Amino acid sequence: MIKVTEYDCWFQKYGSAEDTKDIAAFLEHVICEEKGIIIENAAKELRFTLSFCFGIVQKSRNAGEKQILLGTIGYLNASYGFSLPKPKKEGFVIRSTDSKIIIGGADEPGVLYGVYTFVRLLALKRFVFGADVADAPVSQVRMINHWDNLDGSVERGYAGRSLFFNDNRIEFDSNRIRDYARLLSSVGINRISINNVNVRGMAKELITEKFLPKIAELADIFRPFGIRLMLSVNFGAPQPEIGTADPLDERVLAWWKDRADSIYRYIPDLAGFLVKADSEYETGPFRYGRNHAEGAHILAKALAPHNGEVIWRCFVYNCVQDWRDTTIDRARAAFDNFKPLDGQFDDNVILQIKHGPYDFQVREPVSPLFGALEKTRYVMELQITQEYTGQQIDLCFLPWMWGDVMRFDTGYGTNADNGAIRSLLACGRIEGLAAVGNTGLAANWTGHTLAQANLFGYGRLAWNPALSPGEIADEWSRLTFPDNGGQSIAGNITKILLNSYPTYQKYNAPFGVCFMVECGHHYGPNVEGYEFSKWGTYHRADNKAIGIDRTPAGTGYTEQYAPKNAAIFANPETCPEELLLFFHRTPYDYVMKNGKTLLQNIYDTHFEGYDEVRIMLDTWRGLQELLDGAVFESVKERMERQLENARQWRDVINTYFLRRTGIGDEKGRKIYR
Amino acid sequence: MIKVTEYDCWFQKYGSAEDTKDIAAFLEHVICEEKGIIIENAAKELRFTLSFCFGIVQKSRNAGEKQILLGTIGYLNASYGFSLPKPKKEGFVIRSTDSKIIIGGADEPGVLYGVYTFVRLLALKRFVFGADVADAPVSQVRMINHWDNLDGSVERGYAGRSLFFNDNRIEFDSNRIRDYARLLSSVGINRISINNVNVRGMAKELITEKFLPKIAELADIFRPFGIRLMLSVNFGAPQPEIGTADPLDERVLAWWKDRADSIYRYIPDLAGFLVKADSEYETGPFRYGRNHAEGAHILAKALAPHNGEVIWRCFVYNCVQDWRDTTIDRARAAFDNFKPLDGQFDDNVILQIKHGPYDFQVREPVSPLFGALEKTRYVMELQITQEYTGQQIDLCFLPWMWGDVMRFDTGYGTNADNGAIRSLLACGRIEGLAAVGNTGLAANWTGHTLAQANLFGYGRLAWNPALSPGEIADEWSRLTFPDNGGQSIAGNITKILLNSYPTYQKYNAPFGVCFMVECGHHYGPNVEGYEFSKWGTYHRADNKAIGIDRTPAGTGYTEQYAPKNAAIFANPETCPEELLLFFHRTPYDYVMKNGKTLLQNIYDTHFEGYDEVRIMLDTWRGLQELLDGAVFESVKERMERQLENARQWRDVINTYFLRRTGIGDEKGRKIYR
Repeated sequence: MIKVTEYDCWFQKYGSAEDTKDIAAFLEHVICEEKGIIIENAAKELRFTLSFCFGIVQKSRNAGEKQILLGTIGYLNASYGFSLPKPKKEGFVIRSTDSKIIIGGADEPGVLYGVYTFVRLLALKRFVFGADVADAPVSQVRMINHWDNLDGSVERGYAGRSLFFNDNRIEFDSNRIRDYARLLSSVGINRISINNVNVRGMAKELITEKFLPKIAELADIFRPFGIRLMLSVNFGAPQPEIGTADPLDERVLAWWKDRADSIYRYIPDLAGFLVKADSEYETGPFRYGRNHAEGAHILAKALAPHNGEVIWRCFVYNCVQDWRDTTIDRARAAFDNFKPLDGQFDDNVILQIKHGPYDFQVREPVSPLFGALEKTRYVMELQITQEYTGQQIDLCFLPWMWGDVMRFDTGYGTNADNGAIRSLLACGRIEGLAAVGNTGLAANWTGHTLAQANLFGYGRLAWNPALSPGEIADEWSRLTFPDNGGQSIAGNITKILLNSYPTYQKYNAPFGVCFMVECGHHYGPNVEGYEFSKWGTYHRADNKAIGIDRTPAGTGYTEQYAPKNAAIFANPETCPEELLLFFHRTPYDYVMKNGKTLLQNIYDTHFEGYDEVRIMLDTWRGLQELLDGAVFESVKERMERQLENARQWRDVINTYFLRRTGIGDEKGRKIYR
Repeated sequence: MIKVTEYDCWFQKYGSAEDTKDIAAFLEHVICEEKGIIIENAAKELRFTLSFCFGIVQKSRNAGEKQILLGTIGYLNASYGFSLPKPKKEGFVIRSTDSKIIIGGADEPGVLYGVYTFVRLLALKRFVFGADVADAPVSQVRMINHWDNLDGSVERGYAGRSLFFNDNRIEFDSNRIRDYARLLSSVGINRISINNVNVRGMAKELITEKFLPKIAELADIFRPFGIRLMLSVNFGAPQPEIGTADPLDERVLAWWKDRADSIYRYIPDLAGFLVKADSEYETGPFRYGRNHAEGAHILAKALAPHNGEVIWRCFVYNCVQDWRDTTIDRARAAFDNFKPLDGQFDDNVILQIKHGPYDFQVREPVSPLFGALEKTRYVMELQITQEYTGQQIDLCFLPWMWGDVMRFDTGYGTNADNGAIRSLLACGRIEGLAAVGNTGLAANWTGHTLAQANLFGYGRLAWNPALSPGEIADEWSRLTFPDNGGQSIAGNITKILLNSYPTYQKYNAPFGVCFMVECGHHYGPNVEGYEFSKWGTYHRADNKAIGIDRTPAGTGYTEQYAPKNAAIFANPETCPEELLLFFHRTPYDYVMKNGKTLLQNIYDTHFEGYDEVRIMLDTWRGLQELLDGAVFESVKERMERQLENARQWRDVINTYFLRRTGIGDEKGRKIYR
């Protein structure tokens, strides 16, 4: 029976010192003589995790004994006469000699990341004494966005209430926040925005003295973990006090400068502001006849003296569209709004662009803005919380989907390799990743225990976007469900994770058509739920065909891509089939690459999707004897609900298309009439 | 310009004493020497309304002068030697002699109703001196159900917050409640349940000493108006205290007796309990393996010593239905659940049966339970609040719909006339009406000012179900928008009211198919909103046909009706066309009586419905010069929103069917693809 404590996530008790006996003598002496908030915490974290995970107790120091030595490389080389190579920013090197295992960081955070990497390698039994380990994050921005409201609710949260807020107060358990900071930092997260991008009601006062002292306490907890806070602000905040928020008004600038000065007195290392403006009824520069560069500029100017940054979301579209109007295409919105402003943003403004043109659907193309912006800083926004991907009831291992995104060739390189998203990240054209978090006060942090893998995987990908979903799943499974007495279940769980996204996609909205979900809460199927709404996401299915023509003959959205992709997407023969209905209005009798019609493929995938969930549940049930009862039961309960959801998706989708077309399944399987 | 004060409803200032000069000498002396809470209030109300509506001030009394004399007939005949005929319970006679106008009641409420009738006749200029007026209500139960929650919200309320509750307290403005009591009593309402039938959270404590003193204050206000309070109770209430609510458990009976004894100490004339049990997740006798007669019995027994009654709702159906299962038909539920229990209920139990088998849809057949229950007391439940009928944004004059219900021949008489619902009411087989109220703290009581007509009309119909919608609309319009300087707008408003229900029906779900509404809030179209849900309301539209076969070849629902109706409904040729899709799965090319296909009729009615709203709005705009600005504007704003809603209905419905069938409008009007 493997004892897994859900709360501890990827820091479990990995068994006896037996496993670490080769280097045990080193581990009993963690030495760090350098001073610094983060580096001292790195030493503390190493001692703590060695004790917690491996039962290794620190011994009193005797000169000359074997030891682990921590420090920044500058300090270590100077103090000890080493000649360690200096890695990139936030990077580290781990070197073992006869007397020392040295964890040297390019800087303080580098040491901390070296520590977590070392512990991870130990837990994975991959640490090889004598072989150098060197690594560094490819990007500087590796952020989590909380959509937490001041009342303690979490927008699109499926893991209990907020870690930070309750009842219109900032309220948190310091120990829990410290544990959370460890989880984030251990996978390389270095920024966190704590409040919802929809800044409403009392949340507008978070940037006032009423709340700043308490926010500073939060910052103090995150700081030793190399994590800087950001605050979501409301662009219209000055309006009530001075009657305007016009970004070209000097009084407005003065107001923001005054706010910024005040904030930085409390939190001198605040990373900056996160802004959702002119989006889904939030106010923004459009209200004052200004563009988004002008809007971001005023905040940038207020933050610049403090080295703060503005992260400005590009989720700007017409959310009061008339469904009757086929000339408007919401998919075009981000590009149409932001591409013309390329080069007009301040140096300390970073655009935050959702990975797809819609809104975190189970399958979307990559937004055409990536690579297209040439003179603007920007990051990519992902969503860890499973708004449209099963709400932590259904299992959906998102690094699979994100891996597809990372490998997507934008066409802005000289070849597929250097035009890929992961390459744009590696070379700094995309400056990093942000993602909406999936944690809350749930005992297991994420509602579904296996959804911890999404948080873990996001951090690992933000660190290194070239990691494969398989590597990530394997790491997480082995860290969270460690071997015990030779009984490994990590392999099974890795397989379950890796199948989960393809399975979810199969029973969801077919072939990139998107948004066939229940309105509002977004769980479960509703084929025409958004069909006649104002949200701009339509499929216009009739009795012959379904999907939107986004080629030049249609809305022209394909033209927003680099020429190579524009051509690929515009042709149904070359368009990736999982995106067929996103780009093409397609007749039900269109023959796909497997020789079957679109309609039959819809039926097939939905039957398969449900069957695969059944198999997954059976697989899980087969692990009962090997698993701790609480973990087994909690996951089983989720998977049973997922099976019911998959059944509803299968039948609603299949019935919908049977009723539309009158054409049944060619294999004669039951479709309800 | 007609000055209408929305708050005053059908008690406006009807102008100078000029109008009443023929009988002015009588009106200045209202005489009532009889004692009694209601009768004394009747005199007070007469003096007040004469003053408020006609500016008539009471003069000091001189013997022998002309007067209005009030009293019960027993008292008047005995004291004055009259020989007034005694009307039915709660009835009255108004007789004028040279020296007196006598308003004699069969009992105290009769006097009060006589007073309001007299005032109404004066306002309508229909009082004829010298001609007797005699009237009495056909039913003893004329009830309003409030779905008000203790937090102040109102379930399905569209007229502001609760008149009775706020913030988990009983909180009311005594003057406003008195004005409300006048409105209700003036149209004959004699019972009111003040709290939501979904008795949840703290509302369960309303029957405890914590709240009873304050409820008694409310009862004290309603009592002089002849209105008795009822309380909605939770069938499971004893469970937390004694571990069960099993109606066959003696401890449960003791618990309810104790509660009843306590309640009646505070409110000695409480009319009783209203109960929603085993319905939409509320607990009930099924939970304990008992039937509804057994469930009602225990409450009946507790209330019997106090002359209290149990009103037991029949809204019991499977609300977790699987849409795949075509053998279940929610329409059958009330009959299937309650007909077998006929004769098993206690004498002080009254079943409350919704008028239709579904749930207050814009067009449903009358429930087959009416007339079919032979040994059980029951009332009919209507819904004044416009849950599915426009939510007091859209105008929908419901007495039109209720009139259709009242005229429906159940087939349980010897002919259409004595089998009609209104005849069953008149002969007491149906003991009265209950209806969900439409009032709240809105300044005009009902949100939409013209929705006051629905409250008025409900009361009038409960008093006399033979009244026609035209009579009701005419009365209300003339009372609320009185003549002024010869400029009558009441005629226009009457026409607007009378057109509004047929118009609403035209742009809503077609031909009795029901439930094509947005989920949850129920405003606006969503053709498949409930199609795959658990609520049991499906239309199963495919590319050939739509509707449920409820004939013996289908679910057999038609067989629940008396043979004559069973035959009429089971045959599409004789089935009323407005209910065609309720009873018959019908192909789109089915030719209806006007020679056009079902599909074309759907298109036509939806184009017409929208056009008629446009005409209504134009008509209203044409009244601008004649109307007080505030009333004009508030109604216009509602009508503009209604126009937008009608447009959405028209286009969503028409587009849906165009997409389903591929067949366009034969007149070539625009249907969006």
